[in-house]
Parts: sequence; structure tokens; C-alpha cells
Amino acid sequence: MNEMTNITPEQSTGVSALLADYVLSSRLEDVPEAVRAEAVRTWLNWVGVAVGGCRHESIDIVFEAFAPFAGVGTTSILGRSEKTDPLQAALINGISSHVFDFDDTHLHTVIHPAGPVAAAITALAEHKQVTGAEFLHALILGIEVECRLGNAVYPDHYDVGWHITGSTGVMGAAMACGKLLGLSAQQLRFALGIAATQSSGLREMFGSMCKSFHVGNAAKNGLMSALLASKGFTSSEQAIEAKRGWANTLSTKQDYAEISEGLGETFVVSLNTYKPFACGIVIHPAIDGCVQLRNEHGLKAGDIERIDLTVHPLVLELTGKAEPRVGLEGKFSIYHSCAVAIIHGKAGEAQYSDSAVNDPTAIDLRRRVHPLVDEHMPKASVKIVVTTRDGRTLEKFIEHALGSLEKPMTDAQLDAKFTDLCEPILGSAGTDKLIQSCRTVETLTDVTNLIALATISQKSSE
Amino acid sequence: MNEMTNITPEQSTGVSALLADYVLSSRLEDVPEAVRAEAVRTWLNWVGVAVGGCRHESIDIVFEAFAPFAGVGTTSILGRSEKTDPLQAALINGISSHVFDFDDTHLHTVIHPAGPVAAAITALAEHKQVTGAEFLHALILGIEVECRLGNAVYPDHYDVGWHITGSTGVMGAAMACGKLLGLSAQQLRFALGIAATQSSGLREMFGSMCKSFHVGNAAKNGLMSALLASKGFTSSEQAIEAKRGWANTLSTKQDYAEISEGLGETFVVSLNTYKPFACGIVIHPAIDGCVQLRNEHGLKAGDIERIDLTVHPLVLELTGKAEPRVGLEGKFSIYHSCAVAIIHGKAGEAQYSDSAVNDPTAIDLRRRVHPLVDEHMPKASVKIVVTTRDGRTLEKFIEHALGSLEKPMTDAQLDAKFTDLCEPILGSAGTDKLIQSCRTVETLTDVTNLIALATISQKSSE
Repeated sequence: MNEMTNITPEQSTGVSALLADYVLSSRLEDVPEAVRAEAVRTWLNWVGVAVGGCRHESIDIVFEAFAPFAGVGTTSILGRSEKTDPLQAALINGISSHVFDFDDTHLHTVIHPAGPVAAAITALAEHKQVTGAEFLHALILGIEVECRLGNAVYPDHYDVGWHITGSTGVMGAAMACGKLLGLSAQQLRFALGIAATQSSGLREMFGSMCKSFHVGNAAKNGLMSALLASKGFTSSEQAIEAKRGWANTLSTKQDYAEISEGLGETFVVSLNTYKPFACGIVIHPAIDGCVQLRNEHGLKAGDIERIDLTVHPLVLELTGKAEPRVGLEGKFSIYHSCAVAIIHGKAGEAQYSDSAVNDPTAIDLRRRVHPLVDEHMPKASVKIVVTTRDGRTLEKFIEHALGSLEKPMTDAQLDAKFTDLCEPILGSAGTDKLIQSCRTVETLTDVTNLIALATISQKSSE
Repeated sequence: MNEMTNITPEQSTGVSALLADYVLSSRLEDVPEAVRAEAVRTWLNWVGVAVGGCRHESIDIVFEAFAPFAGVGTTSILGRSEKTDPLQAALINGISSHVFDFDDTHLHTVIHPAGPVAAAITALAEHKQVTGAEFLHALILGIEVECRLGNAVYPDHYDVGWHITGSTGVMGAAMACGKLLGLSAQQLRFALGIAATQSSGLREMFGSMCKSFHVGNAAKNGLMSALLASKGFTSSEQAIEAKRGWANTLSTKQDYAEISEGLGETFVVSLNTYKPFACGIVIHPAIDGCVQLRNEHGLKAGDIERIDLTVHPLVLELTGKAEPRVGLEGKFSIYHSCAVAIIHGKAGEAQYSDSAVNDPTAIDLRRRVHPLVDEHMPKASVKIVVTTRDGRTLEKFIEHALGSLEKPMTDAQLDAKFTDLCEPILGSAGTDKLIQSCRTVETLTDVTNLIALATISQKSSE
């Protein structure tokens, strides 16, 4: 047990039961309004990235692999017209929502909280009538369980090699589904245990399709855990804290106070952040600064003589790809990212397509970007000096980028991100309707109405 | 890396590729006949335990939990009339085969090798015509991959808390299915990686339904991995040996020589063992000895004054339940086990039913069993002294129990175990036919004929 732990082993033996009791007894009316509002933003952002990612090659592969074996489709795939069974739907919607690396982030643990939980309860909501309030509550609780478990084992658990979104997400998803299924305290302990014993996902998979698979798999397996527990399938009731339980087997650090302290009083979803730019978070300050300079001075690509950046060494280490050839490489290029920030005033998924990185204007401009490393520059910050062809020197220091906890995206910015992702798939009117439905989720009598807005009807797709 | 490792890091980076290349290039004709014969015994034993376990409560729960969401059933459940989709079938057949703790054991790692692999390829064989020879070959290869991976990380991996049958079985299942699907070398590396990143299963779950769930889940997820890889789903190609790959993340020991040395020359299935008695292996010497004394001397319960046992302390520690009240407790009672060995001449699943442990004759006799611990007695051995009411003193020393590597079950004994398990479900003639089909599996042109014999036709069950 970690030195920081300030509860005794006797008390710590109860964290599995504690989480189950909390999920059982929590009432939405006890969740502060500001927390619910942040959960709505989390939900909106998640629907946007799930719809946006739905045409990725990996989704097609999942369909193709299981098509010969599929039964009657009953459950929606966001952004698409096909239906499938609820477990596959949870898998696919989870993959889709993470495939652009554009989903939400709990910065302390680098967990992407919404994916496993939202994908699981979205699939479940088509099989059991769920009000918007119940749905939002389950989302909040699932994220709470997931991130508290993550806090208890981070950083050791992550450092050794676990993709923490997968390894904790399965338990968050199970508890959220368990809440919607009306499980008893014991059934919730069983669901937590069935999920814990499926906890998996290796960081070694980063860069392959398995990375987003982890998110979908956590959703699917979490949903399965709750369904099994609802019928009496048993597991250990001390799955987290037992000697050979989850925390000891998957981590060398176990700080159970991170699970118990303030449970029901503070809410992790309040700490959620959303990416304004579809790339690694370390480039965000530079993009944010370039977009601001562009907008403040009406800059165009042809105006720029050079862009000098001062960044922490880690930034260039992670994103120093000077000549990206495909879209994915562009996400690891601070050169390309600053170029599109000036040209387009944004760095969404469209700015990281294969054609975007091969656009001659972007190629010319990215070669004028000159990063300089300075170990005294904070990782979250950047200094930008733009020299224009007409001799001006424009400076900008970004302490914290847009999308950070210190400078969160506004609702309007979230809507704009959502629109960028969804409009090509759902159309303009459909996107607006869906935004409206997501923003008012808490008032819905049946979430399936919202889910229908996030899919393409069979008729219109044929 | 472990000190025992005698290959360099450069070489070790290749074990994922090595396993994939081996599975791709292996030909059944290169597998010695004795190995194939042992694989047939492994297969026979597995079918027997899978059919035998099919009516367990946990199977009914899985059906009930997923029934509202199920599509068209296409794939058989051994011992039952229902059909389901192939992934659920792999799950259920895997659970069923482990639910009595009566399946095969690779003694060095305590992996139960057949479960994950056989359950996966049995489900797949109903969707792709597979000859008996191809099927047996895939079983041999899957077990080879599974147990070599287990050897590479045992004991650390097991000691920290992993249920090694689940955590390695998923990869064995993936590679066996990959062989049957005709995957390329790269697809096999992908399948191995997709499986590795789902590796899971906690020992904390022992004593709950999750224990056998691990076996079925490994089968299901291994099958899924191979299906995904067959369509181009990508993973790391160094899933096992990478810095944040499977071996480093799930174990503090990584002995890659256990994977590479003798690959293709020695076969782990040769070391497989089968339980003659449906309880923990530490009681087996005592049961074996009691059965032998019974048969040699025509003993009946009423003849016995007392039974004195000398056992290693661990034996009594694990199986010292003097007054079991339910069947499961009987499995942890050396008293009950010796009693049924005398009364019935066997200790199969039927001897561990709730009614069997409450049988007055068994209760009377088990109270006459007196174990004495002696730390000099090997764990695998027992000394038995039976004192009869007519004053005889009958002694038996068992060095290695029936079912050990030193004293394997004969084919006839395996058939008798199979019959005990299957006859109540398939009937006498059906059981005989199925034994015959399992024993000649290598000659079958289509394994589905065998699978059909292991199920109950819809008509006959209605």
C-alpha cells in the first residue's frame, strides 16, 4: 500500500463495496448543477467524436469481420445506418469515439473518461427505456468510478504499460450500466468484479487500431458485466482491494483514499477537458497561439516570412516530424500544425487528412516554422514570434492552451467542433438538431430519440 | 529480463514474430505421432468435461443475460440443444468445460490448456469447413503458444494474481483460430497482439463464477482476435516482448528462451495431464489409494473402523473441511473424498453433489478418516492405513497419484470418466458414438459431424 494512503487496511478492504453502495444510493438531485452542466458538455463532445469517427477503416473491419456471424441488428451505430447487437454496438461506438484521438481527457491520469462509459450506456439505452436524466446520471457515476480507480493506481499502473482508459473504463462502464439496470448493492459488486477481471489494454498498442479498440472493448465488456450480474453471475466482492485483486495485480501503487475521499461530494467529471485540436495535446499551445495571431492580424499564409517557436524539449521530441507524408504523421508535426492554424484558423480532423498534409500551401508554410527548445519553457506553454514579409514582428505567449482546465473551450467552441465533425455525415440541419438534443439531454423522456438523431436512417442512406 | 534468459535482447525482440512464423509454417505431418495421440486424449477429455458441465447454473445465467439481445443462433453449445452466435458459443463452451475444475492441467504452470483453445476452434469449425486433422493441428499449436507464453512468465505472473489460463489462453486461442483461418504471418502477429491486449483474469475470482468465465472469455476473445486480424485489423507486431508489451506489463519475469527453445521440436501437449477425480489435485493420491484398497480387498463402508492418512501439511491446509455441507465444500474435504472413494470406487462430479455430501453412509465414513500431517511426506504422495472392523490392517503408499505425469490415466480410464460425465446428458449410445468420433478425430473430413454428436438435437430435447 502506498505511503500516501491514510486509511487503514481494514477500511481499505471495503472500496469495492463502497463504490457499489455509492452508485446504488446516488441521486441525480444530489449532483450539483455545475457538475451536471459539465457532464452535458462531456456528452456533447463524445457524441461529436463518435459520429465523426464512424467512417474510419477500423469500423469497417469490425463490421466485415463479424458480418458472417451477425444476428438481427437491434442497436444503433452512431453516424451510420447499420444496426448490430448491443455488445457489438458498444464496441464500435467506443472505437469510433477514440479513433481520432479527439475525445475528452482527465488530465491527471490521461484517462479518456467518456468513451467506455458513454458507448456502453448508449447501447443499453436502446434496450431499456432510459430518461435523459437517468442517462446523464449514469454517465457521471461511470466516469466517477473509472477516474477514481485510475487515481488510485496512477502513475505506476500507466507507467508499467497499461492503457488506463481501457483498464479502468471497463469498470466505469459496468457501474454506469448497473445503475441503469437497477442492480442491487451485491449485484453492483459482482458487476464491478466481472469487469475488473476483464481489465486489459496495453500501451504498446498505441499507433495501431488496437488503441481505440481498447475503448470499445471496455464499453462492451462493461455492459456485459452488468448484464451478467443482473442475472446473478457471481464474482469476488472485494475485486479491487483483495490481495490478488485488481489494484494489487495491475499496479505497484494502491492509494485507496483516492477512491474513498470525498466520494459523493466531489465529481471527477468537473475536471474533464476537451480537445479543440485533433492532435497530441503538447502541440495545442502553439496552435492556439497561431490561430489567435491569425485572427488578430488577419494573417494569410502568403504574409508569413517565418514563425519562431520556443517550446519545452518534450514538445519537439513528440511532435518533431518536419515533413509528414500522411495525415496521421501530421498529428505528430508541430510544423504542419502551425501551418494549418494560420491557413485555416483551426486544426480539426479535416486539417489532418492525407490531402491536408500534401497541400502545397501547407507544405510551403510548414517549412517556415522554426521551433527552438528551451528547458525553462513550461510544457503547457509556448512563445511564438511571427515575422511577416512586410517586416512586422508579431509576438504571442500562451501560458495555457485552449482546452486546458485553465482555459476551457466555450460552449460555442464545443458546438463548432461538433459541427466540423458531424456536418459531413449528418448534414447541417441534422447536426443542429443533434446539438440541441445533446444540450437538453436531461429533459428527454427517452434517450433513443437522441440516438436516432445521431444515426443515418436506413432509408436516407440507401 | 530474467537472469535465466540466454538469448540477447535483439533476439528476444522477435518472439512475437517467431510464434507467428511457427504457427504459419507448422505442418501436421511434422508433429510426432505420440504427440498427436496425446492431443486426441486432450480433445476427448475436453469434450467430456464441456458436455458434463453444460447444465451448470452459470451457463443458464449467460443465456438468460444475453437472450433479449441475441440474434439468430448458428453455433452449437456442447451438451445442449440451444444454438447461439459463435462468440457466445466460444464463451459458453469454455465456461462449461472448466466449471467442474475437472479439465486438463499443464502441471508446471497450472494452465488448463484445452479450454480456451478448444472452445474457440469448436465455435469456428461450424463456420468454416475444418477437417479433423486441421482441427487437431490447431489445437496442438494453440496449446503450444499458450503454455510457452505461460512458461516465459511463470511463476511471477501467477504469483502476483493472474489466472494464467485466462491470461495466456486468449493468445493460444487466437493463434489456433488464426491457423484455421489461413492467416498470413503478419495477420498472425496482429492476431497475437489483439489477443495480448485483451489478456486478463484475476485469481481473486477463484470461488466465484468468474473463474470458469475466464476460460470462456479467453476462447471468445481469442476467436475475435483472429477474425479481426483476418480482415486487416492492426496491432503491435511485438506485442509480447516490447517494452510496454504483454510480458513486461503482466509479469516481473520474462524468460523468452521458454518461447523460442525447441519450438517445433518439443510439444507441450505431451505434458498434459487429466484429472481422474473431480476435486483439487492435492487430494488425488489419497483417493487413488482408497480406491485401490477398496478394489483389492473388496471393502465396503461398513467394513471400515478407521482410515489413517499421512499427508504433507499443505494437503490438509487446502482440503481440511471435516464437515462439508454442500457439494463444492466436499471438493475441499479429504474426509469426504476418501469416504466416496471407498463407497463408490470413484470421485467424479456425481460424488461431489449436494446430496452426495449429505448421504448418511458418506457422513459416517468420513468421520472415520484421520489425516496426520508430516512435513517429510511429499506433496504428491500419501500413506494410507485402513483398519477394518474385523481387525485387519491394510496399508498403501501412493508415490504419484493416477492422473500425474508419472502415472497417466489410461485410455480406458479416460473413456470411463467421459462416460460418467456425458451419459446423463447424451445417453449411453450417444456417449459411445461421441467417444468413437473423438478418438478418430484426425480422420474426419468435417468436424461439424463430431460437434453434432456432442449436442442434443432440437427435436429430441423438445
